[in-house]
Amino acid sequence: MTQAKKGLDGVSIGDSRLSMVNGTEGKLVYAGYKIEDLAAHALYEEIVYLLWNGHLPAATELELLRAAIAKEASVPDAVLHAMADYPKDANPMAVLRTTVSMLAFYDADSEDTSIEAQKRKALRMTGQVTTLCAAWARIRKGQAAIAPRLDLNLSQNYMYMLTGAEPEPTAVDGMNAYMVLLTEHSMNASTFAARVTTSTGADMHSAIVAAIGTLKGPAHGGANEEAMRMFLEIGEVANVETWFNENIKSGKRRIMGIGHRVYKALDPRAAVLRERAKALAEATGNSKWFQIADDLANMARQDQYFIERNLYANVDYFSAIMLYTLDLEVDLFTPLFAMSRMAGWTAHIIEQQTDNRLIRPGADYVGPMDLQWVPIDQRG
Amino acid sequence: MTQAKKGLDGVSIGDSRLSMVNGTEGKLVYAGYKIEDLAAHALYEEIVYLLWNGHLPAATELELLRAAIAKEASVPDAVLHAMADYPKDANPMAVLRTTVSMLAFYDADSEDTSIEAQKRKALRMTGQVTTLCAAWARIRKGQAAIAPRLDLNLSQNYMYMLTGAEPEPTAVDGMNAYMVLLTEHSMNASTFAARVTTSTGADMHSAIVAAIGTLKGPAHGGANEEAMRMFLEIGEVANVETWFNENIKSGKRRIMGIGHRVYKALDPRAAVLRERAKALAEATGNSKWFQIADDLANMARQDQYFIERNLYANVDYFSAIMLYTLDLEVDLFTPLFAMSRMAGWTAHIIEQQTDNRLIRPGADYVGPMDLQWVPIDQRG
Repeated sequence: MTQAKKGLDGVSIGDSRLSMVNGTEGKLVYAGYKIEDLAAHALYEEIVYLLWNGHLPAATELELLRAAIAKEASVPDAVLHAMADYPKDANPMAVLRTTVSMLAFYDADSEDTSIEAQKRKALRMTGQVTTLCAAWARIRKGQAAIAPRLDLNLSQNYMYMLTGAEPEPTAVDGMNAYMVLLTEHSMNASTFAARVTTSTGADMHSAIVAAIGTLKGPAHGGANEEAMRMFLEIGEVANVETWFNENIKSGKRRIMGIGHRVYKALDPRAAVLRERAKALAEATGNSKWFQIADDLANMARQDQYFIERNLYANVDYFSAIMLYTLDLEVDLFTPLFAMSRMAGWTAHIIEQQTDNRLIRPGADYVGPMDLQWVPIDQRG
Repeated sequence: MTQAKKGLDGVSIGDSRLSMVNGTEGKLVYAGYKIEDLAAHALYEEIVYLLWNGHLPAATELELLRAAIAKEASVPDAVLHAMADYPKDANPMAVLRTTVSMLAFYDADSEDTSIEAQKRKALRMTGQVTTLCAAWARIRKGQAAIAPRLDLNLSQNYMYMLTGAEPEPTAVDGMNAYMVLLTEHSMNASTFAARVTTSTGADMHSAIVAAIGTLKGPAHGGANEEAMRMFLEIGEVANVETWFNENIKSGKRRIMGIGHRVYKALDPRAAVLRERAKALAEATGNSKWFQIADDLANMARQDQYFIERNLYANVDYFSAIMLYTLDLEVDLFTPLFAMSRMAGWTAHIIEQQTDNRLIRPGADYVGPMDLQWVPIDQRG
C-alpha cells in the first residue's frame, strides 16, 4: 500500500474540469474564468450554468435556467410541516441536513441515478435548499415560511423568503457576489465527501446530505460563524491588540478564518470580500466590525508566526463581516455557504458518475495480531 | 500534486488499530482476533466493546455495556411521530438517513465533539439505529413501533422489535453472527466518508449520516439487496445455468455480490455465511435459495472471466440468502448492515478525532484556462 500524506494533502484523486485552485499564487478559476471577473459581473445562475454546462449561457439560456430553478424551488408541504415540529433551537445545519434528506421521499427521481435524473435533481435541489434555509429562519421564530417567487433569481428569492419584503438591490448584489464566490472550490472536504458517497452508486440526496454534514465542521464551512463569534467577542476596535496578545500571541487560541489548507497566499475570494465588506460598512455607516476584522488581519500579517506559516485571511474571514452587515443571523452563515455550494457539489457528483470508480482507500493496520479467543468466563 | 490510483485504490490514509484486511489471503482480523473465531463465539456487544476499547470485556464489563446500549436504545417520540407521516413506500435507507439526522435535535450531546461526549453518542446511537430500523419496518405497515427491552441484547432486541414476539434462539444466533461479521471492515467507503466528515470537526450525527448515505449505494451496502433480487429473478435451481449463460456469459450483466475491491481470494465472511446459510436452509427445510446461490457461485468459479480476475463471492452474496431465510424483508437488508456497522463507524470516528488532520485531497484541473469574460448581450 502507498502511504499518502496525512489528510491526503497534495494527493490528486483525478481530473476535474470544474475549477482550478492555485494555492501558491492565490488564484481561483471556474471553468476557465477568473474568480475576480465572475464576482464582479456574474449572476449566481450564470455560474450554475457554467459549472453544469462548461460554458457561459446566452441570455435566453440564462433566463430559462433562472425560471426553472425558481419554479422547482418549492418544497413539499410535508417537509414544512415536519419542520414546524422541530425544536426551535435546533442547529440550522442539522435542520438543513435532515430536511434535504427528507426531500428524497417526495422526489420522484430520488432513486434514479441516470444522468438525466441527476440533472433534474441538481436543478430542483439547488432551488429547494435555498427555500429550506429561508424557511427555517422563519419557522424557528414561529413565523410561516414564505414560498419562492417565480420572477426572482436565487439571491433575490433568498432575501425575499427571509422577510417577505421586496429585496433591496444593494443587499442582493452583496448576497449574489457572496454566492458566486462560494459556488465551487475543487476537491474541498464536503465536495470530496459527496464524491465518495456518489462513488458507491448512492443517490444524489445521499451525496448532498453527506456534503452538508461535512461542511458543518468548524474547519470547513463552520468557520464563517466561528470567525464572526470571535469578532463579536472582541467587541470594539480598541480591544483588538489586547485580544490578539492575550489569545493569539500566547498560543492559547487560533484566529478563526485565517489560514487555509491550499492557499499559502491571499485567498482571492478574501480579497474581493474585503472590498465588498468595506464598501458595505461605509454605505451603512457601521464600519466597526469591518475595522475589527481588518485590524486583526493586519496584526496577524505582521506577526512572525503567521508570516512563517503563510497564514492569510481566507474566504470565511471577510464573508463573516459582509453577511453580518447584511443583517444575516450568525448561525445562518453556514447554511448560506451550503446554498451557494449546491451548484459545485452537484456538478462534482455528475462528474464523478461519468467516470466513476469506487473511492475506497486503505489503512495501515497497527493493532495486535494473532490473539487467541478466550471464553468470557476465563478472562482476567 | 501526487496522482493517486483511481478510487484511491491501494492508498493508505493512515494508521488504524481497528481491523486488518488481507485481501490476497482472504483474512480479516478485528483488533487482533480472527473473524472466524469471533463469528463462532462472540456476542455482537463483545465486538462493540472490543472495537471501542481495544480488548475483549470481562463478564461484568460486557453486561454493563449490553444494559447501557439497551437502556439508551429508545428514540424520542418526536422522531417516531415524524416517521408516521413519511410516505409508506419511502426507501428504508433514506428513512434511516433522515431519522438519524433528526436524532441530533434531541441529543443533548449532539454539538459537543469532546471525546467523552462522542463516546456517549456512540453508545446511544448504536442502540437507537437498531430501534429506528425495526420501527420503520412496522410503521410503514401501519403498525405501532415497539420499544426496546432492557433485558435483551441488540440482535434479540432487533428481532423482538420487528414482531413483538419473543425472539427465537436459532434466528437470533444467525442475526448475531451476521452483525459480528459486518461490524467492521477497515477503510471501506462508508467508514471513509464518516472520517472525511469528522475531519472537518463536524459532529457524530453528521458523520454517521454521511456513512449511511454512502453505504446505501449498490456498489457498497446496497449489494446484499441487489444479490437477493437477482436470486429471486432466477427463481428456480433449474434456471441457474440458462440465466448465467444469458446474462453473464453474454457480458450483459454482472453477478451482484461477486467480486470485491480488496479481496482477490474468498472473502472470509462469505465462507462463514455460506455455512450458516446452508445450515439454516437445512433446518428450515427450504434450501432452494441457498442452492441457487451456491450453484451460481460454483458456475462463476469455473468460468475463465471470473478465474482471471479473482472474482469470488463477497459478504453480501451469502448474507442475502441467510437474511432471506430468516424472513427479513429484502429492503431491510441494507439497514441491517448499517445497524451492524455502527460500532465500526463510531470507532473510526473517534480514532480519526484523536489524531486528526482535515481530509482534503486535490484534483488535476483539465478544463480551459484564461477565458475572457464576455457580457451576456455580446455572447454568441
